[in-house]
Amino acid sequence: MAKKNIGKSFNIYPMPVIIVGTVTDGRPNFMTAAWVAKLNSDPPLLGLSLGHKQHTARGIRQTGQFSVSQPSVDQAALADYCGLVHGYDEDKASHVDIFRGALESAPMVRQCPLTLECRLSQTIDLPKDFFFIGEVVNVYANESVLTDGQIDPVKLRPFVLTMPGNDYWALGDYVGPAWSIGKALIESREGSGEQ
Amino acid sequence: MAKKNIGKSFNIYPMPVIIVGTVTDGRPNFMTAAWVAKLNSDPPLLGLSLGHKQHTARGIRQTGQFSVSQPSVDQAALADYCGLVHGYDEDKASHVDIFRGALESAPMVRQCPLTLECRLSQTIDLPKDFFFIGEVVNVYANESVLTDGQIDPVKLRPFVLTMPGNDYWALGDYVGPAWSIGKALIESREGSGEQ
Repeated sequence: MAKKNIGKSFNIYPMPVIIVGTVTDGRPNFMTAAWVAKLNSDPPLLGLSLGHKQHTARGIRQTGQFSVSQPSVDQAALADYCGLVHGYDEDKASHVDIFRGALESAPMVRQCPLTLECRLSQTIDLPKDFFFIGEVVNVYANESVLTDGQIDPVKLRPFVLTMPGNDYWALGDYVGPAWSIGKALIESREGSGEQ
Repeated sequence: MAKKNIGKSFNIYPMPVIIVGTVTDGRPNFMTAAWVAKLNSDPPLLGLSLGHKQHTARGIRQTGQFSVSQPSVDQAALADYCGLVHGYDEDKASHVDIFRGALESAPMVRQCPLTLECRLSQTIDLPKDFFFIGEVVNVYANESVLTDGQIDPVKLRPFVLTMPGNDYWALGDYVGPAWSIGKALIESREGSGEQ
C-alpha cells in the first residue's frame, strides 16, 4: 500500500477525554484535557500535558495536587464547557458539583462516574507544555459503573476526542479480547509447517 | 451521587492501541502498547511508557529511534499478535510487512494506515517503566484514510483498549463537536439572569 508523507504534525487516535481539577490562586479550577496516559502500575502513575499558560497548570505547580475526573457521554456537554471557559468563575461553579477526598487541592467533579486524586511527583518542562506526572492516591467510582467491584467500560461509557476536526465519539462495538485475538496468527504459522 | 473509594489502582478509559517499532540488538522489533499520549504540538512530541524489561524498550535506548504505527480494526489481530509474541523472531517477520522512512531504526508496519517515525528526545526512568518522549519527524498515511489531506477518524477506524478486562473496542457513535457542545451551558447561564 502506497504511503503518503503528510508532514510531522500528528495526533494519536483517539484520545480519552478527562477533566483536570486543581486549586489555582486559592480557588478550585477545572479544565478539559485529552493528552493523558497511564505511565506505571506500581506505584500508580499517570501523566498529562497542559500548556504553560493554562490556569490549571499554574494551580498544579502551586499546590502539587490535582484530580482527574472521567466524564461519561452524559457529561459530554459539561466536559466541553470546562474546556471552553477559562479560569474559574461563577459560571463554572454553577455547573460543576465539587467533592473532595484526601487531598485539599484536588477537587473532583461529582457528576463524573470515575475520579482520581493525584499528588504531583514530577514535572517535565517541554517547549510549550508542562508534562505533569502524578501518583494516584485514591480512585472513586459510582457503584453504577462497577461490575464485581471493577470499572465496567460499558457502564462507564467514556468518550474520546479526535483532532484535527475536534470531534467527540462514544465507545463503539466490541472488537475482541486483548492478549487473545492475535493467537490465531501464531497458530496459523505453527500449523503451516513453513519456515 | 455516592462515591465509593476503590483503592489506588487505576486505568484511563479508553486507551488508544498502537504498535511501537524499533531495532533491538540489530533486528527490527515490534510491540503493542496503549500507554501513549500527545505531549506537545510544536515541536511535535509524543510520549509512551514501556516496561524496563521490554525488548522494545532496550531497542529504543540502543538506537534513539522508534516508530508508532496505528492499526485500524482490520489490523486488530495483527496488533494483538505483536503484543503476544515477545522479541523478534521468524514468526513476527512472516506477519509484519516492514517499511522505513527517514530513520533506519524506526521500522514501521505497512499494514497500518497511519504511522509516525520518531527520534527519542528524553527518557524518564519511572519505578517499573521507561517513559520515552519522542519527536515526530514524519507522518505517513494511506490515501484511503485521508479527507482533504487530513486524517479522517471514520476512515481510519482506530480501536482502543480497556483494562482490567483487557478488551478492544471500535470507535463508536458521534457525540458532537468539541469546543462547541458546551456552549449551551454558557448560554443557559447568561440567559438565566441569575448570579
